[in-house]
Amino acid sequence: MTMSPSPIEIYDTTLRDGSQAEDVSFSVEDKIRIAHKLDELGVHFIEGGWPGANPKDIEFFQVIKSTPLQRARVVAFGSTRKAKNTAESDPTLKALLSAETEIVTIFGKSWTLHVTEALETTLEKNAELIGDSIAFLTRHGRRVFYDAEHFFDGYKTDPAYALQTIHMAAKAGAERIILCDTNGGTMPWEVKDIFLKVKAECSVPLGIHAHNDSEMGVANSLVAVQAGAVQVQGTINGIGERCGNANLCSIIANLELKMGYSALGDGRLAHLRTLSHFVAEMANLPPNKRQPYVGDAAFAHKGGVHIHAVQKNPITYEHVSPEVVGNVRRVLISESSGRSAVFGKMETLGMNLPQDNPKVQELLASLKSLEYEGYQFEGAEGSFELLVRKAMGTHSPSFELLGCRIIVEKRRTNEDPISEATIMVKVGDVVEHTAAVGHGPVNALDNALRKALEGFYPQLRDMKLLDYKVRVLTGRNGTGSRVRVLIESGDLKDKWGTVGVSENIIEASWQALVDSIEFKLMRDKG
Amino acid sequence: MTMSPSPIEIYDTTLRDGSQAEDVSFSVEDKIRIAHKLDELGVHFIEGGWPGANPKDIEFFQVIKSTPLQRARVVAFGSTRKAKNTAESDPTLKALLSAETEIVTIFGKSWTLHVTEALETTLEKNAELIGDSIAFLTRHGRRVFYDAEHFFDGYKTDPAYALQTIHMAAKAGAERIILCDTNGGTMPWEVKDIFLKVKAECSVPLGIHAHNDSEMGVANSLVAVQAGAVQVQGTINGIGERCGNANLCSIIANLELKMGYSALGDGRLAHLRTLSHFVAEMANLPPNKRQPYVGDAAFAHKGGVHIHAVQKNPITYEHVSPEVVGNVRRVLISESSGRSAVFGKMETLGMNLPQDNPKVQELLASLKSLEYEGYQFEGAEGSFELLVRKAMGTHSPSFELLGCRIIVEKRRTNEDPISEATIMVKVGDVVEHTAAVGHGPVNALDNALRKALEGFYPQLRDMKLLDYKVRVLTGRNGTGSRVRVLIESGDLKDKWGTVGVSENIIEASWQALVDSIEFKLMRDKG
Repeated sequence: MTMSPSPIEIYDTTLRDGSQAEDVSFSVEDKIRIAHKLDELGVHFIEGGWPGANPKDIEFFQVIKSTPLQRARVVAFGSTRKAKNTAESDPTLKALLSAETEIVTIFGKSWTLHVTEALETTLEKNAELIGDSIAFLTRHGRRVFYDAEHFFDGYKTDPAYALQTIHMAAKAGAERIILCDTNGGTMPWEVKDIFLKVKAECSVPLGIHAHNDSEMGVANSLVAVQAGAVQVQGTINGIGERCGNANLCSIIANLELKMGYSALGDGRLAHLRTLSHFVAEMANLPPNKRQPYVGDAAFAHKGGVHIHAVQKNPITYEHVSPEVVGNVRRVLISESSGRSAVFGKMETLGMNLPQDNPKVQELLASLKSLEYEGYQFEGAEGSFELLVRKAMGTHSPSFELLGCRIIVEKRRTNEDPISEATIMVKVGDVVEHTAAVGHGPVNALDNALRKALEGFYPQLRDMKLLDYKVRVLTGRNGTGSRVRVLIESGDLKDKWGTVGVSENIIEASWQALVDSIEFKLMRDKG
Repeated sequence: MTMSPSPIEIYDTTLRDGSQAEDVSFSVEDKIRIAHKLDELGVHFIEGGWPGANPKDIEFFQVIKSTPLQRARVVAFGSTRKAKNTAESDPTLKALLSAETEIVTIFGKSWTLHVTEALETTLEKNAELIGDSIAFLTRHGRRVFYDAEHFFDGYKTDPAYALQTIHMAAKAGAERIILCDTNGGTMPWEVKDIFLKVKAECSVPLGIHAHNDSEMGVANSLVAVQAGAVQVQGTINGIGERCGNANLCSIIANLELKMGYSALGDGRLAHLRTLSHFVAEMANLPPNKRQPYVGDAAFAHKGGVHIHAVQKNPITYEHVSPEVVGNVRRVLISESSGRSAVFGKMETLGMNLPQDNPKVQELLASLKSLEYEGYQFEGAEGSFELLVRKAMGTHSPSFELLGCRIIVEKRRTNEDPISEATIMVKVGDVVEHTAAVGHGPVNALDNALRKALEGFYPQLRDMKLLDYKVRVLTGRNGTGSRVRVLIESGDLKDKWGTVGVSENIIEASWQALVDSIEFKLMRDKG
């Protein structure tokens, strides 16, 4: 473990490089909200966008001025001037100035291949563009960070030229020089080796900007820090073009928890999980359950051996405490988890019953037979809680089904079928009989059931089905196979999962739907 | 780049450690199919499961014997004996023998904390368990690999004891000793440092088993190889408990493409993407679009600058060629993906038509819009072939649907519903109108359709539905979400997959069912 007094600078480019990710597109409003959350988290620099390349990015820099950040510096990003322009006449450089940020990051070419094939200019001219552009920006009072694009590929091809370009940047007044693994193909030992060589030749503090194409984004960033980088550039959750950028969530956690560096400052690491989920939400991407440190499964234990040990002493199967990054330990109820998981779960429900209580025995037996039939309570904690309460005799159902019928009718090969459900339920002494259509049989049933119950329980209007998953349990019987349906529901304050299993997908869905409604009504009663 | 003549052993534990992942549960059938695909890919060892811990795993070892693999060795996994048993009386060791594999992997404790807190035994006794268990297995003719669980944490706590446990394993005849970073918290430089120290003390060849809790699974595996590991254990797509195991897809690609090692052998790396998607499908997990090397976005270019450069010369923004791992370049703006795949497929069907043929243009357009709607033809080559033949005008349908109606009726909460389908079809000039019941609506429809057609096409009696999978494409609309149904069918000589997509599961199933019957009848006509 290295102890270092000086903090590592965290440079976030979620709003610029992150928005290059497939399926990701931030509105100006999204970007402003993310910037404020990043500021609260404690990152040092927030790259807001490329003014001049994108009108949305120009607007961002205008809006952010009216809602200033507490601590982080907003940075404008752009390229060196075009060969045909002077610095003064170059629209990119002009747009960078008009963003009115204290700091500007510009990128230039370090790889001879890119100079000749992409820029179509000479090596000499390229070096000149870099120097000129940086000098122009510093003359206009900007602090300049220089991103040396494709530095590692460039160094491997022609080390002398790669070094020449960064000497040019240093001479022109760049305050940081960031070595970029733009294509993400460099291995950690190469990063370290090249970093050490550059550091020996360059007095300007260095940074690292890595991509994840070889699944080395985090490792490359951290070996660069070991080799002397003072700044790490990356994105939240590693979103970015192709396989993404280096994931700042893992980098920050590793720097602070594993390497003894300060990155965010006191106590801020505990907000990491919230921020990660917030950015996923803004990017409209489902949060990655398996993401290191911050994912829902990062501290979830399934194997019976693991659960048993972790309940005795968490460090047996947890490399860090979930709380330090704002995460929680979860014990998954599954066929391999056994008794201790069930008791752990009951405890969190405030039910501390002795093992030899006959009701507990009954619950354990019914749980075993349900799991044998294919029920799975991972992700279906609502159904699990209902099951426990039913076994303990503390649950009374909110309605009774008197009957339902679903009809799907299709007239011609290329015509979509029509789905209709009729339902009769009894609440107290009142019978309600109604019908609805839907996009398919399950949706029709869902619609009819809600229609029948909303008169009795208006709070069901706040409840939404968030996710619906179907898993065929064994393929042996073809279309007669048993299926498991998992539903995730939510209301204004909470989320819960429920499960149903049957050879009939309608029945399985029915079970999960009913549980999701019963769970909501039970929670609301308190 | 290191050039090494001896290949690195790839040890896959997708079927054992991978199945510890949240939401993942493989049937025996799934495991057999995955094992065969792994064998084709060229991995050296396939850890099939933990016989004794799980009845499904015992069945796997029985079934795999009747469909032997070409090249890979199947390995049974288990723990050292319990302290209270002798090796001869220990059920775990007995179950391991009964799996009848040439190789057995057992794990034991290297970390004093685990010995005293989890096993609740003495350090001396633990070392004895390790030696005893290995010696027992070798006496019974097994080759034994020893997984030193929590080795790195153990070494950091008490290096002398950690070394003592592996010396014990070596003396007892272990053929490989695998250093495990079970909690996934170790940094690459620590892995390298400890590996080098152990290597200097141990003459048995070493392996590495890493987890991804610090996003270092791949990096840790590769630095271990640099430090002398001859075996790498991991899972396809990195699935596994918590944040997953080290991802073999990235490890294999990096070993072969970046480090000059041989891992799979000639030409097999090009199957990597297909295998990765196959395992995701079997695990019922959406493939990770951003996964290095094999993801749909791994070679997808979005930024204008990047697209322009990559079209001039791909290496400007691609660290390797997508083809070497069986992937394709995608340019997101022009959506020109998949063409070469389509032409490749048409060629295998003996249809060599020029790109500018209007029928080919029409096919490409309809394929694009189908993919946009959620169709996917990986694993549904039957549907793909029908689609191509329809576009080329060389397919005539075997029957016409005049109408069908499915009724599902449920009378009481705890009663299973009854499913009935009526169907009217026309074959030539003959109309058949019939009805059937089933285990659920899809099964009822399947039964009715077969009943209606078997009189005309008796060969349908040889056809079976082997597998039926449902994937909800986006969960945003709850029970109104779009679903994709994949069906695998087979007859006495062949197997084929078909696909259907709709918001209505009955409609999606109908499409896949009809395709599977049409495909069978078309094949039989020749």
